[in-house]
Amino acid sequence: MRFAARVEVRLRPGIADPEGTTIERALPALGFDDVRGVRTGRSFRFQVDATDVETARRRVQALADRLLANPVIEDSELEVSLEPDSGEP
Amino acid sequence: MRFAARVEVRLRPGIADPEGTTIERALPALGFDDVRGVRTGRSFRFQVDATDVETARRRVQALADRLLANPVIEDSELEVSLEPDSGEP
Repeated sequence: MRFAARVEVRLRPGIADPEGTTIERALPALGFDDVRGVRTGRSFRFQVDATDVETARRRVQALADRLLANPVIEDSELEVSLEPDSGEP
Repeated sequence: MRFAARVEVRLRPGIADPEGTTIERALPALGFDDVRGVRTGRSFRFQVDATDVETARRRVQALADRLLANPVIEDSELEVSLEPDSGEP
């Protein structure tokens, strides 16, 4: 079966986020004075083949921990769901 | 009221994603031969003050369209939800 995975990698709370700070500082001059707390991250989407959703989730977690996130400064958040057009060949 | 917003900015389908392609090419050698279709993007999280969720969503959409995404090559996906600790002061 094929699963769709989304991984969002974000800086841990307390780790400085210069890009987010720069965006936030620019916002009031651009008419967005109702926005605060901007934090940036990276997202990854891909498909993973696995026999069930638990196996797929474990694979995605392993991939995120080993290759996508730096666990010293980053957290990763996963979403795994069955692909709509997945199924028996 | 305060709302939590998440914006995911992704390259439109058909736009080349060299970072995703590079990750995908490296995966089999690292033991992940069950993963394909890697696409990368950027994520932004922030809080927005608004009177109701519709207004908040409009503000987040405007911010995403004007400042976060390049609409020529990128799509943006929004999530807006009431902050758990929001409410009357």
